[in-house]
Amino acid sequence: MKSEEKIKKLRAIMEREGIDYFIIPTSDPHMSEYVLDRYKSRVYMTGFTGSAGWAVVTKDKALLWADGRYHVQAAKEIKNTPFELMKWGLDGVPTWQEWLEEKVEDGEVIGFNGEIAPVSMLDNIKKLFPNNKLVYDKDIIGEFWEQRPELPKGKAFILGEEYTGISPTEKLEKVRERMDEEGVSSIYIASLPDICYLLNLRGSDDLYTPIVVSYLLIDRSSATLFVSENKIDQTVNGYLKKHAVKIRPYEEIVDALKSLNKEDMVWLDPNMTSALHYKLIEENANIFELELPSTTMKAVKNEVEIANTRKAHIIDGVALTRYLFWIKDNAGKIDMDEFSAEEKLHEFRSEGEGFLGESFKTISAYRANAAMAHYSASEKAHDKIKDDGIYLVDSGGQYYSGTTDVTRTITLGEPTREEINDYTLTLKGHIRLFLAKFIKGASGHYIDILAREAMWKEGIDFKHGTGHGVGHVLGVHEGPHRISTAPSSVALVPGMVVSNEPGIYREGKHGIRIENLVVVQEYKTTQFGTFYGFENLTFTPYERELIDVSILTEEEIDYIDNYHAECLNKLIHGMKTPEEKEKLKEVTKPLVRH
Amino acid sequence: MKSEEKIKKLRAIMEREGIDYFIIPTSDPHMSEYVLDRYKSRVYMTGFTGSAGWAVVTKDKALLWADGRYHVQAAKEIKNTPFELMKWGLDGVPTWQEWLEEKVEDGEVIGFNGEIAPVSMLDNIKKLFPNNKLVYDKDIIGEFWEQRPELPKGKAFILGEEYTGISPTEKLEKVRERMDEEGVSSIYIASLPDICYLLNLRGSDDLYTPIVVSYLLIDRSSATLFVSENKIDQTVNGYLKKHAVKIRPYEEIVDALKSLNKEDMVWLDPNMTSALHYKLIEENANIFELELPSTTMKAVKNEVEIANTRKAHIIDGVALTRYLFWIKDNAGKIDMDEFSAEEKLHEFRSEGEGFLGESFKTISAYRANAAMAHYSASEKAHDKIKDDGIYLVDSGGQYYSGTTDVTRTITLGEPTREEINDYTLTLKGHIRLFLAKFIKGASGHYIDILAREAMWKEGIDFKHGTGHGVGHVLGVHEGPHRISTAPSSVALVPGMVVSNEPGIYREGKHGIRIENLVVVQEYKTTQFGTFYGFENLTFTPYERELIDVSILTEEEIDYIDNYHAECLNKLIHGMKTPEEKEKLKEVTKPLVRH
Repeated sequence: MKSEEKIKKLRAIMEREGIDYFIIPTSDPHMSEYVLDRYKSRVYMTGFTGSAGWAVVTKDKALLWADGRYHVQAAKEIKNTPFELMKWGLDGVPTWQEWLEEKVEDGEVIGFNGEIAPVSMLDNIKKLFPNNKLVYDKDIIGEFWEQRPELPKGKAFILGEEYTGISPTEKLEKVRERMDEEGVSSIYIASLPDICYLLNLRGSDDLYTPIVVSYLLIDRSSATLFVSENKIDQTVNGYLKKHAVKIRPYEEIVDALKSLNKEDMVWLDPNMTSALHYKLIEENANIFELELPSTTMKAVKNEVEIANTRKAHIIDGVALTRYLFWIKDNAGKIDMDEFSAEEKLHEFRSEGEGFLGESFKTISAYRANAAMAHYSASEKAHDKIKDDGIYLVDSGGQYYSGTTDVTRTITLGEPTREEINDYTLTLKGHIRLFLAKFIKGASGHYIDILAREAMWKEGIDFKHGTGHGVGHVLGVHEGPHRISTAPSSVALVPGMVVSNEPGIYREGKHGIRIENLVVVQEYKTTQFGTFYGFENLTFTPYERELIDVSILTEEEIDYIDNYHAECLNKLIHGMKTPEEKEKLKEVTKPLVRH
Repeated sequence: MKSEEKIKKLRAIMEREGIDYFIIPTSDPHMSEYVLDRYKSRVYMTGFTGSAGWAVVTKDKALLWADGRYHVQAAKEIKNTPFELMKWGLDGVPTWQEWLEEKVEDGEVIGFNGEIAPVSMLDNIKKLFPNNKLVYDKDIIGEFWEQRPELPKGKAFILGEEYTGISPTEKLEKVRERMDEEGVSSIYIASLPDICYLLNLRGSDDLYTPIVVSYLLIDRSSATLFVSENKIDQTVNGYLKKHAVKIRPYEEIVDALKSLNKEDMVWLDPNMTSALHYKLIEENANIFELELPSTTMKAVKNEVEIANTRKAHIIDGVALTRYLFWIKDNAGKIDMDEFSAEEKLHEFRSEGEGFLGESFKTISAYRANAAMAHYSASEKAHDKIKDDGIYLVDSGGQYYSGTTDVTRTITLGEPTREEINDYTLTLKGHIRLFLAKFIKGASGHYIDILAREAMWKEGIDFKHGTGHGVGHVLGVHEGPHRISTAPSSVALVPGMVVSNEPGIYREGKHGIRIENLVVVQEYKTTQFGTFYGFENLTFTPYERELIDVSILTEEEIDYIDNYHAECLNKLIHGMKTPEEKEKLKEVTKPLVRH
């Protein structure tokens, strides 16, 4: 079906339902980081494939909002459709909310699919249009969506206590303790990482995050997993039974919510709940809104998880180090491009024990491409890699033992003065942040500046946060903590894994980023309080050819030498050839001091 | 009248008015930093003289809440009264709100004096007790308050454009531009620093802040100052007339608020408005709540204010430097105590051109006393100063040209290893923060850590913010910006004056703090953005005997040497004797590097 026809069908149903404005968000019923294919209605309607955006359709207008990362791509992808691009973020371009505020008149009706819209969107619209009727209980696009993708059919598997440290029974007990504290009778969980964490389940329903599409309802005495029975084999079934988790078909979550009753107080996270389910719960029971206890629990890794994560990072470090040797050896010698290189990296990773897949789409970016936020190479669109300029690779793996995320930037030729200075400033920020000690209660905004201080003195900045939380064999972006200049009320506590990834991006020239994952650890307790610090999880040598020791302090040079000694020690046994071993020794030697 | 009798009288009126709980806050109608004597009803009732606290009186209870700084003092001061001390901040001690929540029953009535209670307190009580009646339109304590202090009778004077840079006409024009933007018809201002700033008036109605007790109403075409006519002489009268500011008696503000009408939209800052005036405005007009435009305007100093402030700081630096020479020379030789030393400092300051008085109560603290937050010596209670240990002095002056606030810590004997280390760590934090460059949009929480990073590595912290805003010949604590780990949405912009004052406090041993005032200045603009930095305003040498150069970086040592060279240059002409000149040269010599 062509876009014109889809819009025509949509408008016909809008007329039938009396809807004047139809909003299409980019989300799914589980508020997943990567929207499940079945719910990509914005992509279906507009043809625009970016990871964020909003469409609005009226009787005579069809508009698509895309942010700065996607202005070029979106324009291209919607060229042959009736959709008009709203370049979100540019001066003078209204947001979709502002546009609606301008247009919507008294008595007009706003519609959207409440199955995929988050409660926050519903609240937002209610606030802006308190007197307009909203229709959001129908899947209108679903009525005419031909060849609509099915829900993923991946099998679930158990990530046992040898990896996770704690059984579902113990985790559910903790959840119930929190429920008692808050005086609620049940918890509704749509967030797939939360469900997988609590039940020690993993799956393959997403390319990058090993989740299992399902819902979980927990009350004081039982827990019910709503999941397609095809996903659950004998072993998983037995495991869930052992931990007193009942199974019901996925679709029956609706019946379960309808059979809640007025005495029930249901805990839900409005940011992780669809407007439709919220409405169902609201109609049948009472709602208690707060971040889910599982969100906080899974953010703080236990000793078993941390020990496994350390292992995952060594497996991953071996693969990445070998890959970087390979690319340095072969750039300019063999035909190579960003995408083929990415595939080569996948090959190296695939050799690693317990490798499940990438934890996100690899960013394999050569020269100026690396300066573009969210650049990614594809089989069709990529640049050749030659033996000059610098190359950035940001990638990660999912292993039975843990989730990795690492960025290295290397030089493939004779580096320029500017490349060396930018790399060294980035590394300085990365080291300064790593070496920080911080008082109990400190959140990410306390320390973010340490990664930027030296850059700011040279009038340089990067326009992203310095660190995001990382899950354990789950989402590579996992809250609630982060390191950013934006205020955060979530304190960094021992066991939290977070990335440390400053960068410098010069448009048209190069992009540099250096990223390790670190875990928060106890440091010391004194009369002044308790202090924490970081332990490195990632081990892959830095690019010594891009380091200018003259602008580093003794402490910073010592750090690099020690880190490289650790790299040698941890990775040497993974090197497959005498040449690789030799190279590893070479690149981890102490730096020459001036 | 004894405390018992006052409580009896209060209870009698409570009974008459049907009030079950009477709350006595610590504030005045202008929400002044230092409560005007006339409104110190909490002091009058309880005898407790601390700067913060709440009292609650019921039929059979009389309670005083005081925070940790005041637990000892409050206990002592209320010993012979029926008041019971609630040690606010200790585990298990309810706040006054929690205590009331526990006690107040349906149908019971809560009372307080709405003339002095801020709107925030009213809102808080309304939220906690939505169904209880509130009585706050009567000054109940005023009914039996014998020898109640009058309002201060200080004269107003003009701080002309040679000091302030801009005329009242121009300032009012800017205010009206903001009024137009927000679509309001008038502005109500009770905040005395805001009024003084807008009208280029200063006075002597407070010991430390040169304010004039008054109210200001501004509408689209006129401005009216409600002020006791005795305060306004011919010159001031002429000046105000010239700038189209009408004068009405102070008390008539009430009539003015009553004659507002339903078409009026009145801008007020709920944090700077009494509950009673809020009610009056609400009954007669519409309310627009936002920080006042004058608050933002006065925070950003213009070139004339900055030039004057630089002068004020040199005058002040001369006084403080000469004082520090004097105390070092005389400690152990003459009889000297914290309070007599403070008086000596006042003598030095009094010699300065345009000195109006101290900008706050001097903290003159010897040895362990300096480790106590908000310690102050008095004629009755103080320690002797001898020729060993370290001494802290935190003080400031009000001059026609500006407001100063400076802390120096010096050694009077052979310093210990710990004293030297603590001083050098504090100085390191002070320097690191000063040397910071920060991107446009950065607020104080971005950079606070720079003052703490080195301390935290040694498990040391200080429990206060690192910087507060400072007014121009106005409040020594002036918002809305600050430097603190607590999130702030107020960006630091060129022209803002802020303190830089890290410290280390060892209970029972010593307190160290080093404080300069700095002003935000442009640094550079690049492809990455615009960056700002600080300029020092304060010039008084640091204590070289407490500096351990071995733990400082080259950059930090260079900073100290340059700063000392500037001190020599700026202060030498103020030294009165050859000995003082010689000493200044001595203490500002470059540090010896190892």
